[in-house]
Amino acid sequence: RKRILITGGAGFVGSHLVDRLMLMGHEVTVVDNFFTGRKRNIEHWIGHENFELIHHDVVTPLFIEVDQIYHLACPASPPHYMYNPVKTIKTSSIGTLNMLGLAKRVSATLLLASTSEVYGDPEEHPQKETYWGHVNPIGPRACYDEGKRVAETMCYAYKSQSGVKVRVARIFNTFGPRMHMADGRVVSNFILQALQGEAITIYGKGEQTRSFQYVTDLVSGLIALMNSDESSPVNLGNPDEHTILQFAELIKDVTNSTSVIIHKDAATDDPRKRKPDISKARRILGWQPIVPLKDGLSKTIAYFKAELEQES
Amino acid sequence: RKRILITGGAGFVGSHLVDRLMLMGHEVTVVDNFFTGRKRNIEHWIGHENFELIHHDVVTPLFIEVDQIYHLACPASPPHYMYNPVKTIKTSSIGTLNMLGLAKRVSATLLLASTSEVYGDPEEHPQKETYWGHVNPIGPRACYDEGKRVAETMCYAYKSQSGVKVRVARIFNTFGPRMHMADGRVVSNFILQALQGEAITIYGKGEQTRSFQYVTDLVSGLIALMNSDESSPVNLGNPDEHTILQFAELIKDVTNSTSVIIHKDAATDDPRKRKPDISKARRILGWQPIVPLKDGLSKTIAYFKAELEQES
Ligand SMILES: NC(=O)c1ccc[n+]([C@@H]2O[C@H](COP(=O)([O-])OP(=O)(O)OC[C@H]3O[C@@H](n4cnc5c(N)ncnc54)[C@H](O)[C@@H]3O)[C@@H](O)[C@H]2O)c1
Ligand SMILES: NC(=O)c1ccc[n+]([C@@H]2O[C@H](COP(=O)([O-])OP(=O)(O)OC[C@H]3O[C@@H](n4cnc5c(N)ncnc54)[C@H](O)[C@@H]3O)[C@@H](O)[C@H]2O)c1
Ligand SMILES: O=c1ccn([C@@H]2O[C@H](COP(=O)(O)OP(=O)(O)O)[C@@H](O)[C@H]2O)c(=O)[nH]1
Ligand SMILES: O=c1ccn([C@@H]2O[C@H](COP(=O)(O)OP(=O)(O)O)[C@@H](O)[C@H]2O)c(=O)[nH]1
Ligand SMILES: O=c1ccn([C@@H]2O[C@H](COP(=O)(O)OP(=O)(O)O)[C@@H](O)[C@H]2O)c(=O)[nH]1
Ligand SMILES: O=c1ccn([C@@H]2O[C@H](COP(=O)(O)OP(=O)(O)O)[C@@H](O)[C@H]2O)c(=O)[nH]1
Repeated sequence: RKRILITGGAGFVGSHLVDRLMLMGHEVTVVDNFFTGRKRNIEHWIGHENFELIHHDVVTPLFIEVDQIYHLACPASPPHYMYNPVKTIKTSSIGTLNMLGLAKRVSATLLLASTSEVYGDPEEHPQKETYWGHVNPIGPRACYDEGKRVAETMCYAYKSQSGVKVRVARIFNTFGPRMHMADGRVVSNFILQALQGEAITIYGKGEQTRSFQYVTDLVSGLIALMNSDESSPVNLGNPDEHTILQFAELIKDVTNSTSVIIHKDAATDDPRKRKPDISKARRILGWQPIVPLKDGLSKTIAYFKAELEQES
Repeated sequence: RKRILITGGAGFVGSHLVDRLMLMGHEVTVVDNFFTGRKRNIEHWIGHENFELIHHDVVTPLFIEVDQIYHLACPASPPHYMYNPVKTIKTSSIGTLNMLGLAKRVSATLLLASTSEVYGDPEEHPQKETYWGHVNPIGPRACYDEGKRVAETMCYAYKSQSGVKVRVARIFNTFGPRMHMADGRVVSNFILQALQGEAITIYGKGEQTRSFQYVTDLVSGLIALMNSDESSPVNLGNPDEHTILQFAELIKDVTNSTSVIIHKDAATDDPRKRKPDISKARRILGWQPIVPLKDGLSKTIAYFKAELEQES
């Protein structure tokens, strides 16, 4: 039984991680500023003797005693992270420094939730962990992409200089219940549009690709990585690649929707394709995604339906 | 007459900038923690009514009133910035945030001393400002390279979000008097070796290229950029490209040295070539380097000789 801190634990991924770690019997502390997270995502644990919720911003130093830190705090979707780029970059830079300082002081292991966006608009496909990336340092996505890149750099600086045990998960697009309905990302947009009978909006031609991982697969990967000895970055994602057009059609199909598919302007600096090479995770963690896309989508669609009903 | 802050003003480049701005009649404040800078570089101004020296670390907030900020504070040579990678990354991230916060509060213009290292090991040659770069986010140079990249990102986040006036100079290799004699970089190494009759050490085959800019040319470029309206990044460097082997031979020649040239192991992640495309600086600032390499080298060698004599 470990004392585990999850920053950003009231968010989409974090709350699923809380669920799993609580069920495993650990002592879990969530730190969140509720920028994009919600108390509702974790309210079922409030009052449990192993659970603690701290309303706190990681840009401010934090002094607690823990064994492991899952450092997830950071807005993750373009509209959220571009809403306040200065805050996003402070969260990734100062926030990560604070959590590394904490990890150093209490000799905890820190896992950074990094992202496939460190590869930017990749010129290597699929992306291996050795790829250096192709990122615009001054573009509109830079507050997120460069923030995560420098957060990785910080992890390895603390590792080499102070012996902090670090884990770096490069997470590829993930979906599931509790994801943000209004985050403007492709899964939520398409499901909402399909459920509400609105036109499904494809940005550009829809030839760009993404691979979508169900959240419980990611949670298994994060826990496996944390408890491994692997300090270099590891991709966690589903290599099952789809064009955005295929994806629109699949969602139309699963929701039994009558929505039409339309095309809008392509987004600035939009990566043309993205697919993880997960051979490292397979080899080192014995991990791979197991939830079929359709199953994951059904659960997500059920969640969206329930949310829409509650709203109205 | 302006109130001008120079962070890192006791360093190599900073002290030359101080000289020029003082001679122009400005009020100059230097902030420096003396990590790689020396009081000697600016001691001739101490006591002047327009000059102030503050012993201060930019990682700590600073509250003063100024019109312009030249933000140079950051160790610049590989042995210095790798000596304490955590501190290097804090200086670039938190230090830059603090100076941007200051610029925002007092409506000052901030010029960031960025670097050609944001291009990393470039796949485009020569490098234009539009090139996104090829940088290893977790390599041994990352504390510097990614630190500068994220510092640029921060500048544009404060610009777009808070209207802070920013200037970003991407500086290419610069040399001149007051450069560090023991910084392990090519100019100082070769001059010292040649002057002392030791073997001139080339890392690798010596086919890698660099272009060397004399410090007074850089100072003219920085001042022109600060006082222009150009907020996007501008390369400042000398496009006159040399292989490291040619450079070794030139220094042997200018110093009249009997040193032999030998080859050592290549350095990790050592950029194979680097040469600025300065057409933007020419067009927008009407700037270009004017000091011939041999003239700059003579002055630098004279400085090194005097330093060596004083030491012994
Ligand atoms: N969901 C994905 O597809 C995906 C892909 C790659 C990486 N990631 C990473 O995984 C992590 C979790 O993402 P998510 O999808 O759950 O996003 P999310 O927005 O649901 O969760 C982020 C959480 O962090 C909190 N937070 C933000 N800034 C904070 C701060 N300064 N202090 C304290 N808490 C703060 C938010 O309130 C929220 O609860 C993020 O770091 C994200 O970058 C997610
Ligand atoms: N010299 C070059 O070839 C070159 C090339 C590209 C970019 N640059 C940039 O130009 C700037 C100046 O470089 P330089 O060659 O004069 O190096 P330098 O090491 O001589 O100067 C840096 C100065 O910053 C000070 N400093 C470092 N950390 C500080 C901190 N936390 N707080 C306050 N002061 C701090 C040092 O004491 C020193 O006086 C740097 O930002 C560097 O990255 C230089
Ligand atoms: O338990 C801790 C220990 C450190 N920090 C913060 O983490 C940052 C980086 O820590 P480090 O030890 O590197 O910094 P230092 O305190 O030496 O400047 C600092 O801002 C600390 O305030 C924290 O939040 N909790
Ligand atoms: O309503 C939408 C939302 C997104 N996209 C596209 O779907 C892909 C994934 O975008 P998302 O914002 O979900 O995540 P990203 O992987 O780009 O961070 C991108 O090519 C978007 O242009 C789309 O076509 N329609
Ligand atoms: O004159 C100033 C104003 C701000 N800051 C620092 O600059 C950083 C960023 O400033 P900003 O206004 O963005 O931050 P906030 O104070 O709103 O968190 C903060 O840590 C401030 O302490 C500073 O050093 N001098
Ligand atoms: O004693 C030395 C020092 C440097 N270099 C090479 O000279 C080039 C410039 O190195 P420096 O450290 O001066 O600067 P940077 O790599 O940052 O441009 C690099 O290819 C080095 O490998 C060398 O051959 N011998």
